[in-house]
Amino acid sequence: MTPKLPTSQDALLFTPGPLTTSLAVKQAMLHDAGSWHWEFNNLVAEVRQALLGLGGVSRESGWEAILMQGSGTFGVEAVFQSAIPPEGKVAVLSNGAYGERILLMLQQARIAHTVLRTAEDTPPTPEALDALLASDPAITHVAAVHCETTTGVLNPIETLGPVAKRHGKVYIVDAMSSFGGYPIDLEAAGIDFIISSANKCVESVPGFSFVLCRRKVLLATEGWARSLSLNLLDQLKGFEKNGQFRYTPPTHSILAFAQALKELEQEGGIAARAARYQANNAALIAAMRTIGLKSYLPPAVQSHIITSFVYPKDSAFVWTEFYRLVAEKGFLLYPGKISQADTFRIGNIGRLFEKDMRAVVNAIAETLREMGVKAA
Amino acid sequence: MTPKLPTSQDALLFTPGPLTTSLAVKQAMLHDAGSWHWEFNNLVAEVRQALLGLGGVSRESGWEAILMQGSGTFGVEAVFQSAIPPEGKVAVLSNGAYGERILLMLQQARIAHTVLRTAEDTPPTPEALDALLASDPAITHVAAVHCETTTGVLNPIETLGPVAKRHGKVYIVDAMSSFGGYPIDLEAAGIDFIISSANKCVESVPGFSFVLCRRKVLLATEGWARSLSLNLLDQLKGFEKNGQFRYTPPTHSILAFAQALKELEQEGGIAARAARYQANNAALIAAMRTIGLKSYLPPAVQSHIITSFVYPKDSAFVWTEFYRLVAEKGFLLYPGKISQADTFRIGNIGRLFEKDMRAVVNAIAETLREMGVKAA
Repeated sequence: MTPKLPTSQDALLFTPGPLTTSLAVKQAMLHDAGSWHWEFNNLVAEVRQALLGLGGVSRESGWEAILMQGSGTFGVEAVFQSAIPPEGKVAVLSNGAYGERILLMLQQARIAHTVLRTAEDTPPTPEALDALLASDPAITHVAAVHCETTTGVLNPIETLGPVAKRHGKVYIVDAMSSFGGYPIDLEAAGIDFIISSANKCVESVPGFSFVLCRRKVLLATEGWARSLSLNLLDQLKGFEKNGQFRYTPPTHSILAFAQALKELEQEGGIAARAARYQANNAALIAAMRTIGLKSYLPPAVQSHIITSFVYPKDSAFVWTEFYRLVAEKGFLLYPGKISQADTFRIGNIGRLFEKDMRAVVNAIAETLREMGVKAA
Repeated sequence: MTPKLPTSQDALLFTPGPLTTSLAVKQAMLHDAGSWHWEFNNLVAEVRQALLGLGGVSRESGWEAILMQGSGTFGVEAVFQSAIPPEGKVAVLSNGAYGERILLMLQQARIAHTVLRTAEDTPPTPEALDALLASDPAITHVAAVHCETTTGVLNPIETLGPVAKRHGKVYIVDAMSSFGGYPIDLEAAGIDFIISSANKCVESVPGFSFVLCRRKVLLATEGWARSLSLNLLDQLKGFEKNGQFRYTPPTHSILAFAQALKELEQEGGIAARAARYQANNAALIAAMRTIGLKSYLPPAVQSHIITSFVYPKDSAFVWTEFYRLVAEKGFLLYPGKISQADTFRIGNIGRLFEKDMRAVVNAIAETLREMGVKAA
């Protein structure tokens, strides 16, 4: 078997992760670290500390950062498998595939749940959540998705949280694609658990997710976990016992992540990174408009993480062929996931800059000409 | 935050994984692959195909190879979370920490179970399994661990399996540290599910585990899964639908694994690799004997994966200090995990050769002299 990949030059990834990372991040993986060795475990401790810093919280103020093996979905599921009591019930705010995924998780784990569903271009309102919580006292937890990468819509987690808290509910936020790319005030938003992963706005490689949570809320979950691997409280206890992961850590991914955190700091932290992504997104939408391609969402709810574009209304446009031709030019786009409209997506995150956004639009324009597609 | 690791030169890892890998395996990670891109998904298909080949089975003969994000434990748990029906009961053969871990998994997932426990240096017998299965008709599944890295004991999975099959039970084997390092006849052993991970005898980096299983047995598990992330049947369906992982794959780990599979083939396959490990283990035990250190297990049940050595009977021997001094010489040992005796462990797997085994013993001898420990 001969690996087809890697090729001599990598395409740029306009995807919500895995994404294009810096060479230094990848080079950090050219070493085999001992998972039991103090040097590696010191690094794990530093990474956990740095994540608390990114969240604007600290152990002293009652927060913990817990790394969990697997993709981001494993981190989200770890929270639900661990933190919901046997008689608990979760209200899920869903306006896309990731909200629906949480519902599927709860269903498979046989955890009671209800859903407040809005259209894919419409964020839930605090008023609707308030009404739901008033009408169903069995609800114990509220779950929201910050940036729904289905469309790229940004949900108002900061105004929803206080409603959940006023009703005395535990508040869980899936910030997979936004953490590190948006400033989030965890305390003001009333967040108890927030989840993201290594290969998103911190711009590292995949291999693990992480959860920031209130220590007190997590400690109260003793005995509730329905899974050993995904047991969040046991994972914390493991780190506290001897600084180690309970089970084999993705050592190379963690070496890469430490480098990625360093680069995030060098860039100027979350504010600077958010500004770059915002500039990427603005440059992208502007350039796409000049070639007649419109973004799907109203600007007011459009995040700067990922942007959905509506297919050109020309039967000469065939997505798979379009994707292939753009890929051959060195740019990987992302398919749409919206049920209500035919769209494709372009991610703004990763080691991408305004020049890259203009370059991908040039490749798209060239491809549309090759295909004989009239965009506007 | 400055990563303490990597250092300019890596220590050799005498551990059961993460282990020392080749430079080419690590260099394969210097690329960012698109998880949605056909090139990457072709590679995933080739990796799955190659794993079936390593197992001596094929899709045509009714087998599937499924990759699962996370450490090896996640792969083992995926089998139990997915393949045990609501009314199922698992008999676990345990003589070490990994058998006990399966019990813990079943307990947390609220799956009925019973245990056939033997001493840490004693493999279970087919007769004892036969008696257990005859006495408890509620048992539906039998689970065994091939190489218990707790001690390094090799359990007779090939003679236990036919007993399980004669009683009509589904047979699950945790071959985490042995798959690729021992030839295993899956059909003759009556195995239905066998689990291993990337960072063991295939000698790649951590990030995912894999399960080889009989397609028919897996298809029968529809609706049983208690976890979305760890749902093995859905994971297979995902690969079959569009060649993709359902959730973000550890792309870099998979690029590395493809290279590691190539190197395993170049070495001469499992037989050649097993011969190298066997030579490593023989060289290690012989060299340790010359400096007065004895292996813990009787030779008849000693695997060539990892070897436990009894602490010198001298109060000047302090494990943590010993570990530190050997580590400073560039060799990372592994602590003991046995409850019945004070031992430490030395792994024989990874990019290690007889010269490395002699080198680590020289470092150990030097360290014992420095510490003033009389070994014999």
